Amino acid sequence: MSHAQLAFVHVDEPRDGDPDATRFSFDSRLTGGRVTLSESLEHQPEGIRSAALRAGIKYPDKLDFMVVTLPEPGPAVGVFTRNRSCSPAVLLDRQHLADGEAQTLVVISKNANVFTPSAMDDTRAIVNDVAKRLGVRDVDVITSMTGVIGVALPMDKIHAAIKRLPDELREGLVPEVASAILTTDRGPKVASARFGDVVLCGMAKGAGMIEPNMATMLVYFFTNLNVPTDRLSALVKRAVDATFNSISVDTDTSTSDSLVLFSTATVPTSPDAERDLEACLTAMCLKLARDVVFQAEGATKLIEARVHGTANDTDAKAMAKQIINSPLMKAAVFGADPNWGRVVMAIGKPGPGREALLDPATIRIEINGYLLFDRGAAVPLELAGVSASIRDRKKVTIDVSVGSGNGSATVWGCDLSYEYVKVNAEYTT
Amino acid sequence: MSHAQLAFVHVDEPRDGDPDATRFSFDSRLTGGRVTLSESLEHQPEGIRSAALRAGIKYPDKLDFMVVTLPEPGPAVGVFTRNRSCSPAVLLDRQHLADGEAQTLVVISKNANVFTPSAMDDTRAIVNDVAKRLGVRDVDVITSMTGVIGVALPMDKIHAAIKRLPDELREGLVPEVASAILTTDRGPKVASARFGDVVLCGMAKGAGMIEPNMATMLVYFFTNLNVPTDRLSALVKRAVDATFNSISVDTDTSTSDSLVLFSTATVPTSPDAERDLEACLTAMCLKLARDVVFQAEGATKLIEARVHGTANDTDAKAMAKQIINSPLMKAAVFGADPNWGRVVMAIGKPGPGREALLDPATIRIEINGYLLFDRGAAVPLELAGVSASIRDRKKVTIDVSVGSGNGSATVWGCDLSYEYVKVNAEYTT
Repeated sequence: MSHAQLAFVHVDEPRDGDPDATRFSFDSRLTGGRVTLSESLEHQPEGIRSAALRAGIKYPDKLDFMVVTLPEPGPAVGVFTRNRSCSPAVLLDRQHLADGEAQTLVVISKNANVFTPSAMDDTRAIVNDVAKRLGVRDVDVITSMTGVIGVALPMDKIHAAIKRLPDELREGLVPEVASAILTTDRGPKVASARFGDVVLCGMAKGAGMIEPNMATMLVYFFTNLNVPTDRLSALVKRAVDATFNSISVDTDTSTSDSLVLFSTATVPTSPDAERDLEACLTAMCLKLARDVVFQAEGATKLIEARVHGTANDTDAKAMAKQIINSPLMKAAVFGADPNWGRVVMAIGKPGPGREALLDPATIRIEINGYLLFDRGAAVPLELAGVSASIRDRKKVTIDVSVGSGNGSATVWGCDLSYEYVKVNAEYTT
Repeated sequence: MSHAQLAFVHVDEPRDGDPDATRFSFDSRLTGGRVTLSESLEHQPEGIRSAALRAGIKYPDKLDFMVVTLPEPGPAVGVFTRNRSCSPAVLLDRQHLADGEAQTLVVISKNANVFTPSAMDDTRAIVNDVAKRLGVRDVDVITSMTGVIGVALPMDKIHAAIKRLPDELREGLVPEVASAILTTDRGPKVASARFGDVVLCGMAKGAGMIEPNMATMLVYFFTNLNVPTDRLSALVKRAVDATFNSISVDTDTSTSDSLVLFSTATVPTSPDAERDLEACLTAMCLKLARDVVFQAEGATKLIEARVHGTANDTDAKAMAKQIINSPLMKAAVFGADPNWGRVVMAIGKPGPGREALLDPATIRIEINGYLLFDRGAAVPLELAGVSASIRDRKKVTIDVSVGSGNGSATVWGCDLSYEYVKVNAEYTT
């Protein structure tokens, strides 16, 4: 129930819907009060050490290598891309998380290490070298790599960076680690919160190739709550399904997407603490997912599409995604055009199990709260007002009700601008 | 077998691949020679009458209403959009073609007549009025409407136009009928051919919202060959599957797409004549489908994606479509960027029955004949040459071989340009 999951989260938006000025909070059982997410890494599990380096992967002077390491192996769970050309790092991470534990995270940016002859060997060599230098087990190292596809990693430079690690590691998650994982992102995306003795902090990277089921996003969370892996895994899946798996920039799915939650396991768990962790993680995933979309390549507006009244949530989510994935709809939002006819087209796209005709008499369409189509007929309305509302707001909301079913879903996308074309027409060569 | 179907067609391209200068032909059994498609309506079944009018649907002075009528009801088959918000015209056409016969075609452009309270009533009223004026049966009238969604048709103006029909009808398919069906198209798209006593001519409309299974395209063919409806239907489906159902501009599927073939049934059929008709129809569908994509909103290049070596043709077609539908790939082609990493990403997108990992060691990727990735490794190559080839050619070919299977498919798309965003951001308001 993706929609029910969002009931955990309070979203406080300014009048223009500006995602950058939106605050996220949840009601904590542990504290009995409302906890608002911090937009820094001020709340962190104790004992973590980290380093962010300039290894010279692609550019001489950019942060492109980071390591985070916990004092001991702790519970850890991950969800990864379903792309069939997925990276060796993703394959290795899946193996390493099979035992439900991890201790160390290594991220390389500016190179995806995908589809090169030595991609898997290089990935193993990096993991082994980091493990040896830090005195951890190979199987407790998780790694991600993001950037260009098909270019061999400069392994000498990487081994040189790993050699410096023991000297470079600092106490805590240094802010630079959230920068070292970026590629074309507008800036780092981080959040943290404390509720009772529990802390949760997270960081995300992602600015394109964002679509179903984890596209080029790297997302990492760290907590101190000692939740058994099976329950941690279920909790993460529910939070991700309602948030990261409900966003799309361009339907393109990366080869490297990874979301991993690590725990130092120093705070004993309880039902209330776990429920708080789930609420906090959902709020944090929602914030970071919306940040990823709104800060996407060329995006000028966040689009929130909400569909109600389908037979089930799966149908609602499919329909909502069709709205945010339609290039025609995305271009209309960019042009502040309240083109509800394109909503009609988008929700009608057929798919497996979705062949039945839609009945106009049961459909209502609102954009930014303006009712444009009401059960069979366009609403007589001065469209200039709706258009001004799209132009003036940084978040555009599209509400569609299609019947009397109990299904519902909310998803997020962004508009299609000249800048998206420019950024992606001029990327590699 | 979509690929085998294309073996009917000879495609003669100039050096720069310019689709506008490409010629299509087929080997005729009836004539024993090669028949090249004419790009006019010079070859037509006898006895057809037609009219193209300015009814004032949206603009006072544009052709927006056309009628084609046969001397008698004849065999007719159609394929239509699968969009669940489909137009009443499509619903009515499906009913009217259930008996396998039709006599008259009515097309209204500049208004889709979809999602208005009286959409179905208006559609029936138009069909009934045309039938009465021309003395044909309601059930033998086929109608299509294309344009903006959600705006009521100006029925008074339409009835006034229908009243003028008996005076306006001319002998033959007048060239203006191919213009009267257009909306944002660059120009009319027509073709015709004669082989022995048989003629086939066709026209198409479509410039956006083009994706799987017939998007805003209106396509009409007229022949004089008397093929029984069941065989005619099978023949049309094979030709459409390999051509119109293998193109995509933007994944958006229209509510009104229709392709209908009419026959005056004056020439007796034979195995050779039917085989020629299928070859000619396939060539014509291929030409018109490529015209639709290359003349799409904002397109500067035709992209031909060919996938080989999958387990079956269905997988190959899905993979090829992922290439031409990837906004990142489309933007790369617009930017003349030989970004084969995006091909890797695109072919890896998961789907039902397509979860198995791709093995880089079995994959080859070529762009415009340049081998860029060869079974596990990037090919050392001066990318400037490939980039120049993309920039200088109007058709870009992407060849992907993924294994040793017998599946293959060819599909066509176009690049993603600033102009696409501009056209679609500024359409209605």
